[in-house]
Amino acid sequence: MNNIFIIGVGLIGGSFALDIKKLYPQSNVFGIDKNETHLDEAINLKVIDKKANFEDLKLADIVIVAIPVDATLTVLPKVLDYVSDNAIVFDAGSTKEDICLKVKNHPKRRNYLAAHPIAGTEYSGPKAAIHNLYKNKTNIICEVEETAFKLQEKALKLFAELGMRIRYMNPKAHDKHIAYVSHLSHISSFMLGKTVIEKEKNERDIFDMAGSGFESTVRLAKSSPAMWTPIFEQNKTNVIETLDEYINNLKHFKKLMEDGDFEAVYNEMETTNHIKDILNGIQ
Amino acid sequence: MNNIFIIGVGLIGGSFALDIKKLYPQSNVFGIDKNETHLDEAINLKVIDKKANFEDLKLADIVIVAIPVDATLTVLPKVLDYVSDNAIVFDAGSTKEDICLKVKNHPKRRNYLAAHPIAGTEYSGPKAAIHNLYKNKTNIICEVEETAFKLQEKALKLFAELGMRIRYMNPKAHDKHIAYVSHLSHISSFMLGKTVIEKEKNERDIFDMAGSGFESTVRLAKSSPAMWTPIFEQNKTNVIETLDEYINNLKHFKKLMEDGDFEAVYNEMETTNHIKDILNGIQ
Repeated sequence: MNNIFIIGVGLIGGSFALDIKKLYPQSNVFGIDKNETHLDEAINLKVIDKKANFEDLKLADIVIVAIPVDATLTVLPKVLDYVSDNAIVFDAGSTKEDICLKVKNHPKRRNYLAAHPIAGTEYSGPKAAIHNLYKNKTNIICEVEETAFKLQEKALKLFAELGMRIRYMNPKAHDKHIAYVSHLSHISSFMLGKTVIEKEKNERDIFDMAGSGFESTVRLAKSSPAMWTPIFEQNKTNVIETLDEYINNLKHFKKLMEDGDFEAVYNEMETTNHIKDILNGIQ
Repeated sequence: MNNIFIIGVGLIGGSFALDIKKLYPQSNVFGIDKNETHLDEAINLKVIDKKANFEDLKLADIVIVAIPVDATLTVLPKVLDYVSDNAIVFDAGSTKEDICLKVKNHPKRRNYLAAHPIAGTEYSGPKAAIHNLYKNKTNIICEVEETAFKLQEKALKLFAELGMRIRYMNPKAHDKHIAYVSHLSHISSFMLGKTVIEKEKNERDIFDMAGSGFESTVRLAKSSPAMWTPIFEQNKTNVIETLDEYINNLKHFKKLMEDGDFEAVYNEMETTNHIKDILNGIQ
């Protein structure tokens, strides 16, 4: 655990960097980013120790790829080209199928672990990096059997030290289910924000009327479009399916209201109240 | 500020009771509720001092009506029948037009102040009552000119002591705008919860994949159907309008995805990101 490389020094990569440096104060944490300003910021904020190039990856013990998922498709194979046989490379992308497919036949496939830590905030960039982001969070690992056993072990040890719980899943199932429990939430939130902003654009005072409930439902509309656009693109089929079902449920609710069937409106909400028990399982 | 009557000893009424008792330890806080269990709970939790009947309202200095908005339509006129000329009665309902209309010609109309404190949590009942719920929150007052000046003053003094900021609005504008910044959020959240539960009912493990983003967007789906059904019923026209716009925005987003126009998808999100600045104004 000597040389750690963070590719993409934003919220996700930067938060890994901060915790790893705390766990291993002797380690060198290198940053690679196409955004020079972010690299300088990350150094000033002591998120990373120094900048590096792809050529330096030959020194890496661990490489964390934390960039938008479209960029991962081109960067990950390149990273694998450079690393030594002893390096473990993992990503943190919110889609897994296309990424796993992309490196399926790469000669260094066994150096890669497909990961999706379910952690984040609505903020982005090096300034958004925080300690303990991953504590008590789920990390979904896909195709674990495709990763060299010793390198799996190295990554799992780090995840345990960061306080994460591990769930194993195949990439197809990951992308399908994450569309429901994460991608759809982001769209519902963005479109809620859009609906209210459009309506209220000439009445700035109106937002004084908004409370914590509104804030909670539109929080995700602060998320980075640069990160989310490629996620929706890669997971297009699944996301469209969730949107269809969501829109149908909203139309049905509206129909019940139009019909004046408020007993059914009550039942819709009461049935969904059971989300309480489900959420109790979420940190 | 001697005798305070709380009608409906749940989250909203109970939280008023707790703060008022703290501000005025010598006051008597009476509770009226059709749910006897809630009254007993409220006494045990020291949310109220004792139970009371409508006949006792003649002793009241302040009456707070904090019950579902359909019940308010029948209870509020009855309360006004009983109170003395020196009592100020205010409600906390999330709709204002029907309620104001209902008491428009009541002989004691000037004892009533139409209020909507924008505060709450997704929990309900006396157990949900908390201190400082109203601190730094907005309280929307409608038709202030219909309330006796001295009684306005009494209520406004209390709201100031509770730390609330006041906004004045007519009932029609209140109901229209609150549909956007509050009622729609609740439906979007309930339907998001429904969509995910329906899909994932046979795969309980899947909720391990849900993170804080999902939790934030479905938080309001824990809300009380008994409170929300009559709100949607009273504000039917406005809520249906917001639902139409929300559904259209979602359909448009889906269409952009189907067309593969991810540049437009990016722009949709980037434009809405400006919600950040708006939310900075919300506590």
